[in-house]
Amino acid sequence: MADFALLKSLSIISPARIILLVIDGLGGLPDPKTGKTELETARTPNMDKLAAAGICGLSDPVGPGITPGSSPAHLALFGYDPVTCNIGRGVLEAVGIDLDLQPGDVVARGNFCTVDKAGLITDRRAGRISSEKCVELCRLLDGAAIWNVKVMVRPVKEHRFVVVFRGEGLSSELGDSDPQQTGVLPKPVTALNPEATATARVANQFLAQAKVILAEHSPANNLLLRGFSRRPGWPLMQAIYKLTPAAIASYPMYRGLARLVGMDVLPTGSTMEEEFRTLALNYEKYDFFFLHIKGADSAGEDGDFARKVAVIEELDSFLPRLTPLNPDVLVITGDHSTPALLKAHSWHPVPVLLSSPWCRPDKVKKFSESACIAGGLGRFPAVEIMPLAMANALKLNKFGA
Amino acid sequence: MADFALLKSLSIISPARIILLVIDGLGGLPDPKTGKTELETARTPNMDKLAAAGICGLSDPVGPGITPGSSPAHLALFGYDPVTCNIGRGVLEAVGIDLDLQPGDVVARGNFCTVDKAGLITDRRAGRISSEKCVELCRLLDGAAIWNVKVMVRPVKEHRFVVVFRGEGLSSELGDSDPQQTGVLPKPVTALNPEATATARVANQFLAQAKVILAEHSPANNLLLRGFSRRPGWPLMQAIYKLTPAAIASYPMYRGLARLVGMDVLPTGSTMEEEFRTLALNYEKYDFFFLHIKGADSAGEDGDFARKVAVIEELDSFLPRLTPLNPDVLVITGDHSTPALLKAHSWHPVPVLLSSPWCRPDKVKKFSESACIAGGLGRFPAVEIMPLAMANALKLNKFGA
Repeated sequence: MADFALLKSLSIISPARIILLVIDGLGGLPDPKTGKTELETARTPNMDKLAAAGICGLSDPVGPGITPGSSPAHLALFGYDPVTCNIGRGVLEAVGIDLDLQPGDVVARGNFCTVDKAGLITDRRAGRISSEKCVELCRLLDGAAIWNVKVMVRPVKEHRFVVVFRGEGLSSELGDSDPQQTGVLPKPVTALNPEATATARVANQFLAQAKVILAEHSPANNLLLRGFSRRPGWPLMQAIYKLTPAAIASYPMYRGLARLVGMDVLPTGSTMEEEFRTLALNYEKYDFFFLHIKGADSAGEDGDFARKVAVIEELDSFLPRLTPLNPDVLVITGDHSTPALLKAHSWHPVPVLLSSPWCRPDKVKKFSESACIAGGLGRFPAVEIMPLAMANALKLNKFGA
Repeated sequence: MADFALLKSLSIISPARIILLVIDGLGGLPDPKTGKTELETARTPNMDKLAAAGICGLSDPVGPGITPGSSPAHLALFGYDPVTCNIGRGVLEAVGIDLDLQPGDVVARGNFCTVDKAGLITDRRAGRISSEKCVELCRLLDGAAIWNVKVMVRPVKEHRFVVVFRGEGLSSELGDSDPQQTGVLPKPVTALNPEATATARVANQFLAQAKVILAEHSPANNLLLRGFSRRPGWPLMQAIYKLTPAAIASYPMYRGLARLVGMDVLPTGSTMEEEFRTLALNYEKYDFFFLHIKGADSAGEDGDFARKVAVIEELDSFLPRLTPLNPDVLVITGDHSTPALLKAHSWHPVPVLLSSPWCRPDKVKKFSESACIAGGLGRFPAVEIMPLAMANALKLNKFGA
């Protein structure tokens, strides 16, 4: 789907509320000893009750066989086509540290690097300096004003950082300064079209100033920029769905992604207790909540089957907190699968549970991968979850006469 | 799908016959007391027998979450992409009264309206005059010849009517005369491009003459036109499928839609008895029949669960009439769901049953929403029903070598 024009023309404002509860990395693979996945091993009486009364299915985040990263997987959940909705490398890095980008900002991903006396690159990652060192160096470079452009430099991790150029009329049509090899000089930033000439000049002036500042900080005695990009011009959720959406997520990446599609990112602690409290406290102010539970994915990536089971069980124990809120639509799903056996994201489709007074219940009695195969939602692309949630909240008008 | 070029290149003429039996608004939601939908409540021994021998599934008329109107839902059943195959407002209104439009006709939707002495609109709907009055006024305006253009004026209901301009070289690129507000003058019809100038002049001349004729018929003392459009230039079913198609439908809307895609609309009475007799009488002359059963949708819209059940049971009792005809493919489905609980069209997918000697039977033994979840057709877009029917009639050649 992702037919924004169609959804825009059909969506209406109403008091009905939707909660999209995303258990990161939910889908799994069976433990060979038991034949049961993490979700199937977990005791989940509350999700099972919801599954019995609701409708279930399996969704493909990007497409069958495609293992998604966190950003495309979440974009699909928000109803954005994960293949065509590209995010530039610089913006992705900024999103990952939850930077609040303005529409005109130009962002690049930065690496501290080591250069020799002739200026030739000897290490593109400056020996992977510590994250503390990165913070210190970014502080030295942050806040420059080059002509009318403000330059913000924010640390990410180890040698990685983000540079934001903020000013009027900037262009992101710029070539990288990172030559992606050692033994050569960093490249000057080039304008990829005439409109970008002034911005290229700003970037090169910044690089020249930074080189001077960093000279005495070997091994991080220079820097490289790549992936110049701008905040994508996608329509926001407010425009497509006429929702007032909020995000409750403790990891910066998910907060950043939620901002890109127009959500208010609510301040919250990182435990489930705190996230569910944030939801209850803000419940009157919004009609859409994206609630992100991170622990299952981390456990899967660590190959820790038992911990992933425990995270799912803990989450299940919080679901009765939603009962007094009585959302019109509750969707419980994952952004992708992260089987502990693979210790990585995977392509396996993700269980989806939709609970609403207007869903057509199926015969699924337990929320699990194998039960969802026979669910009434069938197997479907994750971008269709939002239209389904909107329909079940009676927030979509009839199409055509 | 709706890949007309592909289907055109593969379809062949053969004596095999297809019957597409559409139970309008077939899909439902369970009665909370019994947990069964209308279709699940109905005793349908004949459909169940067909389901057991055939293959079943669930189809989405437009897409998951999208509630379709009757026209997009039927276009999808005929294999036309319901989102890209748009029908102009004027044509839709003409279709709704089963007007036989020629390809060059320009059609507008009309409203009788009330204007004051200064000509300002005081009521855009002329106090919703009676349908009888509408017929009388349309007769006064019908049949004008303006230069070489014949103008037909046909009543719809209350203040609504249709104007057809028939002549050479007309254009529908015209702005509305309806300003969509009161307290202002009707707008002159404007040409939206230079080719439409002559047609705009004809339309304005018609409006001027009509104003004189209507002057003494207050509250319907003027008229407003909008939605100028032409019969869509879609390929007809004859071209795509090489079929000789016929429609058996008693409601004007469905007859009109069938005409738009090239079907011969057969004269018929409105009862199931009469529709099935029309089918039998014309069975030798066509190789495709669209048979439309309206009652289930009306009952659903009225919120009358029991009446919808009764309509489905009545229809089931007529199915043995098809046995002697021995169609090569019989498809039984709905255009969309109309759950009595919602008293409206809905987004829920629609049960589909395909019976043919060449289908691969599944384990579905009963024709119902919940049984179809496990059907061999899976969950699929309604536009794929026609290619499936064609294939099962052995009317599609192999693609590629």
